[in-house]
This record gives sequence, C-alpha cells and structure tokens, in this order.
Amino acid sequence: MSFDPRTGAAWETPPDSTPDEVDDTVAAAVAAADDLAGATPDERAGWLEAIADTIKDHKGELADKADEEVALGLPRLTGECGRAADAIRFYASVVREGGWLDAAIDHGPPDLRRVNVPLGPVAVFGASNFPFGFGVLGHDTATALATGCPVIAKAHPAHPRLSAALAGLAVRALDEAGAPAGSFGLVSGFAAGQRLVGHPGIRAVAFTGSQRGGLALWRQAAERDEAIPVFAEMGTVNAAVVTPNGTDKFDENGFVGSFTLGMGQFCTKPGLLIAPEGVAERVAAALENNPPHGWLLTEQIAESFTGGVRELEKAGARPIARTPASGTGWQAQPAILAVTPAELRRNPVLLEELFGPVALVVEYASRAELDEVIAMLPGSLATAVHGDEGDPDLPGLVGKLSRRCGRVVVNGWPTGVAMGWAQQHGGPWPATTSPAHSSVGAAAPRRFLRPVTFQGVPDAALPPAVRNSNPWHLPRRVDGVLEQ
Amino acid sequence: MSFDPRTGAAWETPPDSTPDEVDDTVAAAVAAADDLAGATPDERAGWLEAIADTIKDHKGELADKADEEVALGLPRLTGECGRAADAIRFYASVVREGGWLDAAIDHGPPDLRRVNVPLGPVAVFGASNFPFGFGVLGHDTATALATGCPVIAKAHPAHPRLSAALAGLAVRALDEAGAPAGSFGLVSGFAAGQRLVGHPGIRAVAFTGSQRGGLALWRQAAERDEAIPVFAEMGTVNAAVVTPNGTDKFDENGFVGSFTLGMGQFCTKPGLLIAPEGVAERVAAALENNPPHGWLLTEQIAESFTGGVRELEKAGARPIARTPASGTGWQAQPAILAVTPAELRRNPVLLEELFGPVALVVEYASRAELDEVIAMLPGSLATAVHGDEGDPDLPGLVGKLSRRCGRVVVNGWPTGVAMGWAQQHGGPWPATTSPAHSSVGAAAPRRFLRPVTFQGVPDAALPPAVRNSNPWHLPRRVDGVLEQ
Repeated sequence: MSFDPRTGAAWETPPDSTPDEVDDTVAAAVAAADDLAGATPDERAGWLEAIADTIKDHKGELADKADEEVALGLPRLTGECGRAADAIRFYASVVREGGWLDAAIDHGPPDLRRVNVPLGPVAVFGASNFPFGFGVLGHDTATALATGCPVIAKAHPAHPRLSAALAGLAVRALDEAGAPAGSFGLVSGFAAGQRLVGHPGIRAVAFTGSQRGGLALWRQAAERDEAIPVFAEMGTVNAAVVTPNGTDKFDENGFVGSFTLGMGQFCTKPGLLIAPEGVAERVAAALENNPPHGWLLTEQIAESFTGGVRELEKAGARPIARTPASGTGWQAQPAILAVTPAELRRNPVLLEELFGPVALVVEYASRAELDEVIAMLPGSLATAVHGDEGDPDLPGLVGKLSRRCGRVVVNGWPTGVAMGWAQQHGGPWPATTSPAHSSVGAAAPRRFLRPVTFQGVPDAALPPAVRNSNPWHLPRRVDGVLEQ
Repeated sequence: MSFDPRTGAAWETPPDSTPDEVDDTVAAAVAAADDLAGATPDERAGWLEAIADTIKDHKGELADKADEEVALGLPRLTGECGRAADAIRFYASVVREGGWLDAAIDHGPPDLRRVNVPLGPVAVFGASNFPFGFGVLGHDTATALATGCPVIAKAHPAHPRLSAALAGLAVRALDEAGAPAGSFGLVSGFAAGQRLVGHPGIRAVAFTGSQRGGLALWRQAAERDEAIPVFAEMGTVNAAVVTPNGTDKFDENGFVGSFTLGMGQFCTKPGLLIAPEGVAERVAAALENNPPHGWLLTEQIAESFTGGVRELEKAGARPIARTPASGTGWQAQPAILAVTPAELRRNPVLLEELFGPVALVVEYASRAELDEVIAMLPGSLATAVHGDEGDPDLPGLVGKLSRRCGRVVVNGWPTGVAMGWAQQHGGPWPATTSPAHSSVGAAAPRRFLRPVTFQGVPDAALPPAVRNSNPWHLPRRVDGVLEQ
C-alpha cells in the first residue's frame, strides 16, 4: 500500500515479492552478468540511451503517477523526470569515453595490463524524495548498468506504483535494445530487500536515504559470509556559513528557499545556518513572509519530523519562526529554531539531520567562535559559505569546510546537485559509508568496478580494453604515460 | 620480546606504548595533517625520496637486523630492502605526475572543480613476512604519505626491533627534509594498535597480514562512532591451473619453487594446484628432490602451520610428499597434499589459506570438472594458468579466473608482485576488505583520498590543483576533456 500524501488516502500497490521471486530475479541477474560485462562500451551506452528515451517519452504520465504518491507537484516532478533522463544520457557519454575503465599497460617485464571489471549484480535502494533522480532508474541504476553490472532495484515503499511503472519501461526498453535478459529487475517489500542484500549473487549495494536505513544495509552486508561493498549516501546537516563580513550580501530569502525546497526533503538541505549576530531575525522574517506549502512524503516522515522538532526544542533550540501546516494529509509545520554555540556543544542531537522543512540558526560572536562551531560539524554531503569574493575569511573557511564535506559551495546553496565531470555527491562519514565515492557525476560509475591485472597474458586471451590494438579506442596509460 | 626463528632465543625489544604515548603520537599526526595536505607534490615527493635514500644508505645493517628477527636470509632481505626503497622512489614519481589528484573542472554554470584530498592520519599495520615491503616503511606508509596523510605505524610483533630502527630513520630523514613534525610516528604493542584504530584522530587503516587480523581491525573500525575505511590485504589460496593440454609445458619445479619461496610465507603463495591427472606425482617428486630449508617467522605461525596441515588431513587431504623440518627454532615440514574435487566440495576448509610451505593438488578428469573446481574458488589476490600460448582453453580460463581474483598470471607464478603503473595487488573478498583498491603500484595511493568539489569558489580560495593557472602543471579533465 502507498498513500496520497495530500489526503492520506491509500493506493492499491503491487504485492511484495516472495522469497522465490527474489531468488529468481537474482538468478536472472547472475545469468546476465557475463554478457553484460562483455558488452562493448557502445552497446552499453545504447542500452542506457534506450532507457533515457523511454523515460522521456513517458514523462507526462510518469510525473502524474509520481505526484499521486509523493505530492511534490507536477512542475518539480516533470523537471526531475526530464533531468533523470538527461543524466542517463550523460552516463552513456561517459561510458563511451572509456576513461572509467582506467586501462593501463606496462610492457615490463613482466607484461602487466590492468583494467576495471564490473563487480556483478548490484542491489539498488532508491530514495523517497527523488522518485526519478534517485529512484529505481536513477543515478545508481544508470551507473551500475554503465559499468556492466546487472541491477536489481527495490521498489520504494513511498512510491511502489511509480517504481513498478519505471521498471516495466526499463525492462521493455532494454529488451528491445538487445540487452541481455536479466540486466534489470525489480523486487518489492521490506523482506525482499533484506533477502536481496543477503543473497550470494548480489555483489554490491547502492542506497540513498536516511542514516538509519543506510547503516542497516551496511551492517547486514558486512555480516555476510562474503562481505560486499555498500555505497550508502545519506542525508546530512549541510551547514551554511555567513562570514563575519558577509551579512550585507547574505540573502535570507535564498536560505529559506533552499531549506524549504521540496518541503525540506533534500539530502543536501542546509539544516544549519552559522551566521553573525542579527541574521537569525532576518531569516525568521523571511520564512514568515514566504510560508512554504506542501506535504511530507510519508506518514512516517511526518511523524519523525514533528517528533524531531520537539527533540530539538528539548535540547535547547528556541523556535523563532513557524508557519502553518497544510491542514490535510502528511503535514509539517515549517520552522526555524535558534541555538547558541554552547548548546550545540552540549547537545550533539542538535547537529543531527532532521528531514523536513526545519533549520537551526546559530549566531557566533567572533571568528574564534565560528571556528569552534565548524570544528563540531559532522561529515556532510555539502556545505556553503556566503561572503564577498574578496572576503579575507573566504579562503580559510572554504578550506576548513572542505575537510568536513564532499562539496563546498560559495554564495549558493547545497540543494542543487549539477551533473557533470567534476561533480562530487558524497562525503565523509556519516554522509556516506564510502567517502572515496560519488553517487552523481562522471565518477559515480567507479563504485561498481574493481581492477584486475593480467600478467603475461597472450593478446588473444586479454579483454579487448587492454589488447595491443586498442579496439575500443580507449584512453590508456602505457608505461606510465597517458595516451588518448 | 621478539625471537630468533632459527633458535627460538628471545631478543630484548622496546617497551609497549602507553595509552598516553599513543594519544600523543596521534595528536602530533593530527597537528601535522593540514601542513602535509597543503604541501606541493614536489615537496611530498622529496620527503619520500629522503626516506628511500636513508633506507638504501642503511641497507646492510637493516637486512642484518631483519634477519635476526625473521630469519629469511640476507640475500632475500637485502634484496627486499633495496626494492622497498625503489618502490618509495616510484611513489615519489607517481606523486609528481599528479594524475592521482584526479583534478577536474566544469566551467558550468555552475563552476565545479573537483580534486582529491587526503583522508587524514592513517594507521598502518604491516606484515610479518615482508619486513621492508610491507613493514613500517612499506607500500602502505609510502602511499599514505604520498597523498598527504600523516602515518602512524604499529611495530610488528615479529620484528619490533627492525620496526623501531626503520621508524627512527624515517623520522630523522623527514625532519631533515623539512616535513612537518608528526608526519610519521610509531607505536608498539597490541593494546596500542587497538587504541590507534579506535582513536577519533585516525581516519583510515591499512593492514597487510592474516584474515583473522585484518577482519578484526575491519570490525573494530566499523564500530567506531565515525566508521573509517580499513584497507586490509589478506593472504589467500591463489589457485594455479594447468590446462587440459598444458601438462607437457608445465614446470613442476617452478611450482615447488613458488609455493616454498620464503618457506611458503607469501600472501600470493599458490596454495592450490588444479591440474590434469598425472601432475600430482610430478610435483611430489619435485618437492622431494629439492627440499626447501628455512624457518617460519614466529612460533605462532609454526604452530598454526602444523595444526593446519593436520586439519587438512582430517578433511580428507592425503600427503603425497613431505620433506624434513629444520630441526631447530620455529620449524615446518614442507608438504604437498592431494585432494579430489569431491573432497573440495565437501570440505570448504580445504579452500582456506594455510600460511607456510604447503600446497594442495587437485586433479581433474575433464574440462567440466575443472570448471566446477574453479567455481568453488574463494576470492584471491592472484591466480595462474599454465598452458601454451595458442591453447584453446586459455582465453576462457583467464576470463573465469579473472572473476575471482585481482591478478591473473599466464605461465608464471603469483608470488612476485612487480611495481608499476598497471599493477593490481588486491582482489575480491576475502582477499581484501575493499576490492576496488590495490596496495601496490601507482593506484595504491588512491586508498587514502577522497574527492571534494568546489562550487562557485573564487580562484584565490581554491586549492592550487584546480586554480585556473594550474600551478602544479597537473593533467586535468576540463569540461570533460583530459588535458595534459
């Protein structure tokens, strides 16, 4: 069962997968693995493009279906759906470029040839808040397929009907494009997800969502007979800093817009604003002048939000602005709370992420106090600094914040995650379980690869990527020198 | 206390580190981290070269000291010491080349610039069997320093006096070369090692050694408040296959030489030979005609070896050759045992690594039976295939084996691990805790890095690696195109 967040009315949803169905889906993925791994970059790129095309072709109906289950509104969902298709196309171009294979040849002796190979079937657990970008056909699925790994996605309990619709489109598109049967599969239900992560046929897990969910999968995977990597990208507090001289330039409406975007349901939501004195009042007024309207994704998220705000208050945070809830369905009262640096130090709970439209403001009295607050920050996906280009504090703050996150934004907000070659969407624990990896951008496929070196292997027995003739026209490092 | 393996006589060794000493060593590393991270590639390469120089300058006395504690003999230890210094020089050249920084610029909008940054202080746990290559100044320490991570090594209980001597040389060389104080430190004792892994200042762990030791550290690191990556490279069974048509070309003396090299104390020892019928007799004769002579590294390894051989026999393996033990000190009786494919299937213990001069031979009756045995193999660091260049079975076997290891060798043995750009020393679980990484070669520094993206950051506030002027002359990917 899923629900309309606007009313709480239930939708009928596909039944949970049985244990046998899970096993059959994994068996099909395992059977597809060698063919998928052996496909040329061009073939794989074509399969990705087929998925992108079908998503684009069905954008309208997919956005409608998504809106029924997540209530994020058609403009946002149509846009997200289109961007998800664009992202898959981008990954197709990355696959064709071939640098991700990291092919290297040392003529030796000994003759050594290294190339990345796919890990094998990947289980993908998408997020509630991005039903397209981080759903069953989001970045994780696209990048795993890109590297030649079959994917089994778990339908998200917040949007199981959309998950089924997307999976149906992908299976058809892959089949029509000539991809091996079993390249993509879907399972439904909590128990099915657990069975998947414990299944010997699954070789890696990708997860986007809450700390609790991500760490549970991470622990389960570590307890297998053969432990497997879990790439969990989890929501974080993503502090934004206003420099001591930055208050004039600081845009309080931008902050409110960012932390209430999608009703605060972004893993990159700026949940903590660290600013000189006087800024708290401005952001409080901005929220009250511009109250966001919307719903939370699930009843559980709505309950966690309300309970979480109460916990923050108990821990010493004082509400300085609060706007009305929607009045129906899975509701939230958007709010800003103020805390002192001393309270932050005493109550680590104040530095935990709270999913939904709430932010804390902490005002600092001196640069020393600002540094002290930064030193308390847990690992985050992203952080932001606001100050003039020539602000003398800017380089030092960018440096300090870069040690605590995967991305530092100057004079912008962490909520938007652009696609590209230089993107990093990840970060130090507890932002991810694997700080070396990104779940968005050209580096994202690397999660699903491992290198193999072939020593003294005759040319005909080598994988094409490292044969003498370079049949895939890859950039390769030959005797230490990069050749394109 | 450490021991002379030849006689069992005890050496006096430095005392264990106290908890305060561990904390002070970590505090010094933490204090050094920013300076080390901020150093140019040239500076860091110079520091590595200073360590390499001092090792080379003291090669004779270091080899003597090592031989007292590990009894691997001066020719091997002198050679290993020189190669360890060469490896450090190689990493210096890798640092200067700069590709490991993986610098990328998307001009956007938004303007995104990604570069790898060091994780911070790394704890290094070396191995008993390679006191130089995988000792306190081995590949792990060199590659962590290369990336700008301070290192705290734990003295190995099998060679604590050598560990102290090497650490003393490194601290002096780094100091004279101008590296920040605290860049390298040493702690001693089991409790000190545990304290190190649990210390919030430590940001990653590198380990080389047994499954038991590696997995214990991996579990401890996962239970921290902030979990940290553990890169454990652990000994494996490293199967060698003779193709159905390969018996003529197969060199039984090569096999015996490889599995008894260093008294079988290599993590890449070929512990299982999978061959057509008739090969077992040949390898048995080869061992008996050429009995190896030497000692095991520690009393515990000697006891595990003797007990382990007994376990193999209990599990159905039949001794087909056994040669005399040394007669004194930490002894072992080199042996070859034979098993059937059916026994392998019944007794998974037969597929576990046994450290020391022993190998199993399994004869197969058909290609189908060969494939069945290969399908049972656990993850390994390396595997080997022996057969003619034109052998029709070669490509398929290379492919199958590549799915179960980090390196496939044709007509050679896995024991030698050459340095280079295309080397991979790692592999699927349980060979390592991180199949995407290598502990030897140009890719080894990647373990200690994580990417950070700078979004909209003014040039002056960017790290040098991604400034417009490219002051470090790095290869960079600009708007998706690799520029050198």
